[in-house]
Amino acid sequence: MTTGPAEVLAALKWRYATKKFDATRKIPADVWSSLEQSLVLSPSSYGLQPWKFVVVETPAVRAELRKASWNQSQITDASHMVVLCRKLEVTPADVESYVDRIVEVRGVPRAVLDDYRKMMLGSIANPAAVPGGSMEIWTRSQVYIALGVFLAACAVAHVDACPMEGFDPAAYDAKLGLREQGYTACVVATVGYRAADDAFAGMAKVRAEVAKVISRV
Amino acid sequence: MTTGPAEVLAALKWRYATKKFDATRKIPADVWSSLEQSLVLSPSSYGLQPWKFVVVETPAVRAELRKASWNQSQITDASHMVVLCRKLEVTPADVESYVDRIVEVRGVPRAVLDDYRKMMLGSIANPAAVPGGSMEIWTRSQVYIALGVFLAACAVAHVDACPMEGFDPAAYDAKLGLREQGYTACVVATVGYRAADDAFAGMAKVRAEVAKVISRV
Repeated sequence: MTTGPAEVLAALKWRYATKKFDATRKIPADVWSSLEQSLVLSPSSYGLQPWKFVVVETPAVRAELRKASWNQSQITDASHMVVLCRKLEVTPADVESYVDRIVEVRGVPRAVLDDYRKMMLGSIANPAAVPGGSMEIWTRSQVYIALGVFLAACAVAHVDACPMEGFDPAAYDAKLGLREQGYTACVVATVGYRAADDAFAGMAKVRAEVAKVISRV
Repeated sequence: MTTGPAEVLAALKWRYATKKFDATRKIPADVWSSLEQSLVLSPSSYGLQPWKFVVVETPAVRAELRKASWNQSQITDASHMVVLCRKLEVTPADVESYVDRIVEVRGVPRAVLDDYRKMMLGSIANPAAVPGGSMEIWTRSQVYIALGVFLAACAVAHVDACPMEGFDPAAYDAKLGLREQGYTACVVATVGYRAADDAFAGMAKVRAEVAKVISRV
């Protein structure tokens, strides 16, 4: 690997929340595939991956979703769009299925995972004790880890992105049939290439003074 | 920049939740500085950065926090440890201060930001309407974006990390005096270099089959 701390910092300084995408430019398939894989590879609590990532490709669906997103142009103009969704519930069946997957991938006997399995089952049996204090908050938090990883991956890959919370989750759920599948929309990422005339591209990045957000003990 | 999609993917495959750190290895100051800056540069809703990142350096405090973290060794053995905290409330004063900062950094007249300022003030005046449905969920979600960006940055920088939710937030808040400052602990990242004998380092990464977590519409 040729990357390092300086490269990631340069990438994070380069990125910005793209307001206007070049609607004529598409992300090459191999690049998009890598970005999708960054979502799949994202860490999550226990590794449970309580999420689904819906890649919306159909232009007519994108146009419908734009109406449920304050008519923001990124929804239709970006090369790609992904809706990051959380699982409504994490069930014992999800834990068992995850343990099965560990057995399959690592080729270990199921018995060696029993303590881990019981720990996870104990956690979900008492949702008030999960980090954040509810299943909803816990699963939503995991989805935002994936968003952060994805935005960093886009930056390092020199692909523009705009994370978007300004949409109607209920309308998204309905149009994408998410609740029937056990999921709900949390946040959207539109991805592609900035338009040459996006006024926001040239603006200085605004962040708090370091002393305000970093403290040392 | 020499980075690209292949490099970020290799980095994300290389990383894992480090269970045992090499307690003798310290992250060089310039590398840590870059990782800290990745937190500062993380995107957030409206750019409001409703967070604080507490870097715990004092060994005695790390030892105390380990007791409030199920005695997990990463808390004391990792080179660095950061507690990612959310703001308890986002107030009109926070919005005004952020607008002041935009004026300062970009050198624009405050008047051109008035629509943006009013939009933010409108949002926080009606916490039930913020994404996620409460100020707590909204600010916590932003902190997890920063966690995702940070973990990706660590991976690209070839630094090991372990995100940790298994700790007592109330004990952390008390020991670090967070609530008095208007913050509460959400999640921890321990950072450093894997021990040569961390059994988890060699295990295959377990992720759901792509078809289970990525769907296309």
